[in-house]
Amino acid sequence: MRILILNGPNLNLLGKREPEIYGAEGFENFLESLRSKSSCAITYFQSNVEGELINALQDAEGRFEGIVFNAGGYTHTSVAIGDAIAAIDVPVIEVHISNVYAREPYRHESKMAKSCVGVISGFGLTSYELAISFFETW
Amino acid sequence: MRILILNGPNLNLLGKREPEIYGAEGFENFLESLRSKSSCAITYFQSNVEGELINALQDAEGRFEGIVFNAGGYTHTSVAIGDAIAAIDVPVIEVHISNVYAREPYRHESKMAKSCVGVISGFGLTSYELAISFFETW
Amino acid sequence: MRILILNGPNLNLLGKREPEIYGAEGFENFLESLRSKSSCAITYFQSNVEGELINALQDAEGRFEGIVFNAGGYTHTSVAIGDAIAAIDVPVIEVHISNVYAREPYRHESKMAKSCVGVISGFGLTSYELAISFFETW
Amino acid sequence: MRILILNGPNLNLLGKREPEIYGAEGFENFLESLRSKSSCAITYFQSNVEGELINALQDAEGRFEGIVFNAGGYTHTSVAIGDAIAAIDVPVIEVHISNVYAREPYRHESKMAKSCVGVISGFGLTSYELAISFFETW
Amino acid sequence: MRILILNGPNLNLLGKREPEIYGAEGFENFLESLRSKSSCAITYFQSNVEGELINALQDAEGRFEGIVFNAGGYTHTSVAIGDAIAAIDVPVIEVHISNVYAREPYRHESKMAKSCVGVISGFGLTSYELAISFFETW
Amino acid sequence: MRILILNGPNLNLLGKREPEIYGAEGFENFLESLRSKSSCAITYFQSNVEGELINALQDAEGRFEGIVFNAGGYTHTSVAIGDAIAAIDVPVIEVHISNVYAREPYRHESKMAKSCVGVISGFGLTSYELAISFFETW
Amino acid sequence: MRILILNGPNLNLLGKREPEIYGAEGFENFLESLRSKSSCAITYFQSNVEGELINALQDAEGRFEGIVFNAGGYTHTSVAIGDAIAAIDVPVIEVHISNVYAREPYRHESKMAKSCVGVISGFGLTSYELAISFFETW
Amino acid sequence: MRILILNGPNLNLLGKREPEIYGAEGFENFLESLRSKSSCAITYFQSNVEGELINALQDAEGRFEGIVFNAGGYTHTSVAIGDAIAAIDVPVIEVHISNVYAREPYRHESKMAKSCVGVISGFGLTSYELAISFFETW
Amino acid sequence: MRILILNGPNLNLLGKREPEIYGAEGFENFLESLRSKSSCAITYFQSNVEGELINALQDAEGRFEGIVFNAGGYTHTSVAIGDAIAAIDVPVIEVHISNVYAREPYRHESKMAKSCVGVISGFGLTSYELAISFFETW
Amino acid sequence: MRILILNGPNLNLLGKREPEIYGAEGFENFLESLRSKSSCAITYFQSNVEGELINALQDAEGRFEGIVFNAGGYTHTSVAIGDAIAAIDVPVIEVHISNVYAREPYRHESKMAKSCVGVISGFGLTSYELAISFFETW
Amino acid sequence: MRILILNGPNLNLLGKREPEIYGAEGFENFLESLRSKSSCAITYFQSNVEGELINALQDAEGRFEGIVFNAGGYTHTSVAIGDAIAAIDVPVIEVHISNVYAREPYRHESKMAKSCVGVISGFGLTSYELAISFFETW
Amino acid sequence: MRILILNGPNLNLLGKREPEIYGAEGFENFLESLRSKSSCAITYFQSNVEGELINALQDAEGRFEGIVFNAGGYTHTSVAIGDAIAAIDVPVIEVHISNVYAREPYRHESKMAKSCVGVISGFGLTSYELAISFFETW
Repeated sequence: MRILILNGPNLNLLGKREPEIYGAEGFENFLESLRSKSSCAITYFQSNVEGELINALQDAEGRFEGIVFNAGGYTHTSVAIGDAIAAIDVPVIEVHISNVYAREPYRHESKMAKSCVGVISGFGLTSYELAISFFETW
Repeated sequence: MRILILNGPNLNLLGKREPEIYGAEGFENFLESLRSKSSCAITYFQSNVEGELINALQDAEGRFEGIVFNAGGYTHTSVAIGDAIAAIDVPVIEVHISNVYAREPYRHESKMAKSCVGVISGFGLTSYELAISFFETW
Repeated sequence: MRILILNGPNLNLLGKREPEIYGAEGFENFLESLRSKSSCAITYFQSNVEGELINALQDAEGRFEGIVFNAGGYTHTSVAIGDAIAAIDVPVIEVHISNVYAREPYRHESKMAKSCVGVISGFGLTSYELAISFFETW
Repeated sequence: MRILILNGPNLNLLGKREPEIYGAEGFENFLESLRSKSSCAITYFQSNVEGELINALQDAEGRFEGIVFNAGGYTHTSVAIGDAIAAIDVPVIEVHISNVYAREPYRHESKMAKSCVGVISGFGLTSYELAISFFETW
Repeated sequence: MRILILNGPNLNLLGKREPEIYGAEGFENFLESLRSKSSCAITYFQSNVEGELINALQDAEGRFEGIVFNAGGYTHTSVAIGDAIAAIDVPVIEVHISNVYAREPYRHESKMAKSCVGVISGFGLTSYELAISFFETW
Repeated sequence: MRILILNGPNLNLLGKREPEIYGAEGFENFLESLRSKSSCAITYFQSNVEGELINALQDAEGRFEGIVFNAGGYTHTSVAIGDAIAAIDVPVIEVHISNVYAREPYRHESKMAKSCVGVISGFGLTSYELAISFFETW
Repeated sequence: MRILILNGPNLNLLGKREPEIYGAEGFENFLESLRSKSSCAITYFQSNVEGELINALQDAEGRFEGIVFNAGGYTHTSVAIGDAIAAIDVPVIEVHISNVYAREPYRHESKMAKSCVGVISGFGLTSYELAISFFETW
Repeated sequence: MRILILNGPNLNLLGKREPEIYGAEGFENFLESLRSKSSCAITYFQSNVEGELINALQDAEGRFEGIVFNAGGYTHTSVAIGDAIAAIDVPVIEVHISNVYAREPYRHESKMAKSCVGVISGFGLTSYELAISFFETW
Repeated sequence: MRILILNGPNLNLLGKREPEIYGAEGFENFLESLRSKSSCAITYFQSNVEGELINALQDAEGRFEGIVFNAGGYTHTSVAIGDAIAAIDVPVIEVHISNVYAREPYRHESKMAKSCVGVISGFGLTSYELAISFFETW
Repeated sequence: MRILILNGPNLNLLGKREPEIYGAEGFENFLESLRSKSSCAITYFQSNVEGELINALQDAEGRFEGIVFNAGGYTHTSVAIGDAIAAIDVPVIEVHISNVYAREPYRHESKMAKSCVGVISGFGLTSYELAISFFETW
Repeated sequence: MRILILNGPNLNLLGKREPEIYGAEGFENFLESLRSKSSCAITYFQSNVEGELINALQDAEGRFEGIVFNAGGYTHTSVAIGDAIAAIDVPVIEVHISNVYAREPYRHESKMAKSCVGVISGFGLTSYELAISFFETW
Repeated sequence: MRILILNGPNLNLLGKREPEIYGAEGFENFLESLRSKSSCAITYFQSNVEGELINALQDAEGRFEGIVFNAGGYTHTSVAIGDAIAAIDVPVIEVHISNVYAREPYRHESKMAKSCVGVISGFGLTSYELAISFFETW
């Protein structure tokens, strides 16, 4: 099973950025341990550019069976990303490292959740792991 | 590890109620297979009464290491349940069978999420399973 | 034809509570005269507990052909009761003794109306009678 | 007892217009059967013009003991119709064929309900019949 | 003078729950010292179930001259409790241990305050004491 | 100076309709005394039909130097009447018999005021008189 | 192909009313040149009365293949006109002379657009021409 | 008849401040001509201080038969001024020089209008004159 | 213990102003009986001027151990008073004579409550007495 | 005449993406037939990146006489695109394939429409054609 | 160049009030060092009274070339102060010591900013200095 | 001291775009004179692409001691840019050329201000200069 992990803006700073919210582990380390544990072929892409994330979603068609997507700050503002998810056939799971419902009200709204399979929020990097384990058993 | 699965109003109808939204499997069947797969000791309680769910949360202190809670329709209206979760030390995960963000707007709001560890929504009965697997690896 | 009349919180006070709004007749008296006039078998249940009303709705399946439901103050707040009505196959009619649209704005909204056959509001105890006469001719 | 049935905009299309919402029976047929069943003298008036409906309400004074009024789309927007109902002494019942609470949110609000005796919504053409039976027993 | 102290959801946890908000004293201790100081006969009832609180309010008629009511989380959501207070003749004072106006915005609104004599909020357990001293001098 | 007094829906009922709000004097009587006092040539037109009021506004061009307009319930809802006032060159004064700001909130908003010279509200029938006296001294 | 051009309130003033917004050309002139250019049989009707516009929509059934409708100020307020468009089978295009989105916020909302084929706004009288050219090529 | 004209903040700048909105005439000049025309004894007081305006309202009791009050910017924000008007027995008329409904939305709301006899807005300094002529004929 | 009672706008009219809301007793009388009952040294200051109330709050530092503050209409609008309370170290209790939650919605909000110890509302002049008794036992 | 057709996010998927909303024809095909019919020189650019669309708008100055712009999901969220349109002298027409007013409420608002000549929405790919025919006759 | 520094409510407490927000330096000290550095003649005035601040603004005409104004809590509520700034010809700069956009939402809105030259917020006492340096180079 | 000036969308058009709002001077000219006056090493970067601005913010870490950031239209919509500012340690000052509070309401809100040191708005290009002078004296 081929999985794309897609990370949006500022998630390249993981481990360095606000560790009290996002934890101290870098994403590269985590990815390595994730790959060693999982039977899936995991591809990783990160971009700060909204349109490049849309490109990545569109390009996933036929190349992946599932997408685990943390759209960061674009989650709450991007109609265009929501449209892209609705436009493709690959199932997408929205994930968040922090519990977005325990933060500012504008982080409670998602412009993309309704086009996703589901949402996993608040479990640190394990949020990604739970999403992948769902794809594995689907 | 001792886990309490707590189900709120109308979830006793699972398998019978609106199967296009909630699926055709009854909760008893699912619970059985869950127990056979998991290393946790899983206790199950369901009630349609808001106050009995609060009682169950309060009684969990010292008896469980984690609670997987689908509060059904009370998720969106009950300040009292949210207060109960904040008042106890046992960690709670909010789960939903359907993707609540793809349904009516009043189901997008949760009065309890901010006091939970996190939220898992939209994966059918697997939502419960993912929550338990998080507790197992915590 | 078997009909369940279901009354929510404070409707046990009828005849005593704010007679300028709800009238001076007790519900027991009214029920007697209703039964004598109607060809339906009428069962009556009242509770102040939201969850017991949900239990009553769920238990109605297979035992009644129609439910006449005055949910009182829960009408305007209970997503869980609305969900219960949507979950069962017995048709439900929402009734109110007073004209809720001539009262406080928060009484204009109903969380259950969309899952009911229809709404009858403002005709005193006759609201129940009209609902039953609809079931009789359905 | 003299009753005026007053129908607002587009209700002259009944039986032709969106039958999945409004049913397949024309109003003329229904009126005939209604008259044969009822002991009331029933007068019928329909207009697409808001001001003519106001004229009809004002002219009812002294000529009718009750009005059954389906104001169609004007229900949700016309302060002037609400004022006319408040200005006359003839009691008015607001009726709707479809369950307006199960439709778009802007159909949930009524500018006239607070000046009516009550509201009956969602019982097809039987809504009119229930309203008349209330007047008969008043 | 007979007084009922009525406590809503989670107030049975007092002394254990979030002591930085609610203080470290249990309610039983406090009640004892309150009784020793006051000339009133004080009865105490606590429940997590909304409908049981409504039952208690209804049963107070003729048995108490005043009610001191901390409805906890139901304060902000329960139309049914507000209706019960309006339906009975016993005067009710709404009390809160914490200053609800210094907490989340949804705790600023009360669905019951308008039917109470008044509101006392923010004085710790002394809020109850002040309410009783008002009844004593009324 | 030629003045048009334009009255909207339900103002033909003046003297009969809700005298505690609108007073007990009919408009015909008032008009007579107004004409006897004023140096203006006063024409009077009333209609319950929104479009006929728009017709009257359009026809005023070149025939009147001023319009005193009580649009009744259309004041608060009619963009089309506001557009008509903006489209003509004859100055219009909005008048109300009752103090609309002391009534329901939806009567506080005017869709036409911004295109009028000004607003006079709350002086009974004298509101019309003050408007005419403004035109006389303009 | 038979086309009905339907114009709502104040559009009879075109060429005279606020030329900086609506242009200096009268509608009669424009209609003439439109007819000379188009292969369609174009019928024209204007009314300031909301109900007469509804009448015209209902009467179009079987007599026209398309309607080009500028409802003026009723666009933003009339649920009844929106209902009439939904009730008939003739396709309707909503047109505006000015760019309504560059004007007051209350002109941005249309109560009828959702029941139309589409909307053309801001091209002066050419808006009508574009609508007709769409019908010609449909 | 003794009348108090009360002017709020910035109205001492009349004739100097934004003449395109407020006109070029100073208030002193106007007052002189007003006194010469009117049979009333007119007292004038202006202050930029909210509390001094409240003092003036309270002191008017027994000294004036009517108050003409332009509260300027306090009109839209001062609950305390509205309370003062409600607290005294002298009738108050709210006046504005400019048409406040043709200006910013926050100027459309008045915190004092509901406690006044009525409102006169948009007639330049003549607004004061109309208010006085109402008191003269009351 | 030195206590400052601070009264805001229109509270100097107590006993004269709207007695059905505020009672018939003047504040001077009440103050006398309060002083005779209390062990505190009670200083009283009233002003209609928002800024003088702020001055009084600032001057209280070091001169009083507690402030009982009825800010009247400024309660609901004054950020500056709220800031003053937050800026000083003397504890402040917000009191109201009437039950503000049973009055207009704009009286339900307080701009100062969050910086006070607590709120006592609805007990007539006894509200002040309860506040002082709290300071005595603090 | 030189025209730029500018397409925003996900419009590169046309023909593949949700054909029930956007139709089954690819944009390349359509473009070919458009060019063959039109006397204009038509340049086409598509990007999923908001900033590249802004670049394209800025670069159009002096190179095109008109822009036909379907900004897709950015229509409803991008202040920056709206600013770019306001900043350039080339006239822009906003087009949509689907009738955005018949879809989700957040698609009814446009952040760019007020700076465009006008809007054409709902005519499938013909929306582009109508826009170009407007430029041709301008 | 003559500059007026105008400080609103509670700013006389600077150095004493909430030093974690407003810093520990008193305004007198700061003023001294400011005067020694600047080529401008700097006058300072502080008041807690809204109307006195308006007086000061009005009196500045002809006496100052610029005003640096920290209106404190009145910034967010005072239409009257905003009107005074609009009424005078002396340019005003709004300054804040703390970053108001990082504080409560009601501090994000300014009723005066639109009539000022600009806003400087968040630089401690240096905010005043930056404002003066702008006037020096204007 | 090393300073990064970061300009967002459309600011490359400065001097050409809407000079009545943004002035007639190009940014290059201004930058030159700024560098000649300042002791700081000033680097300049502009992009229309939201993600490239985020890249620039992230890359600033360790290379600059301060950032002066005019995010243009993204100021009001970009959660992702706000997150990037919060994620880095370099202090950022938000600047605007025009007084955004005197423009459309949607320009009054900033998604990034709360994570900045402060905001300077309305001083033309001098806004940048003031920001730099703050960094110089910090």
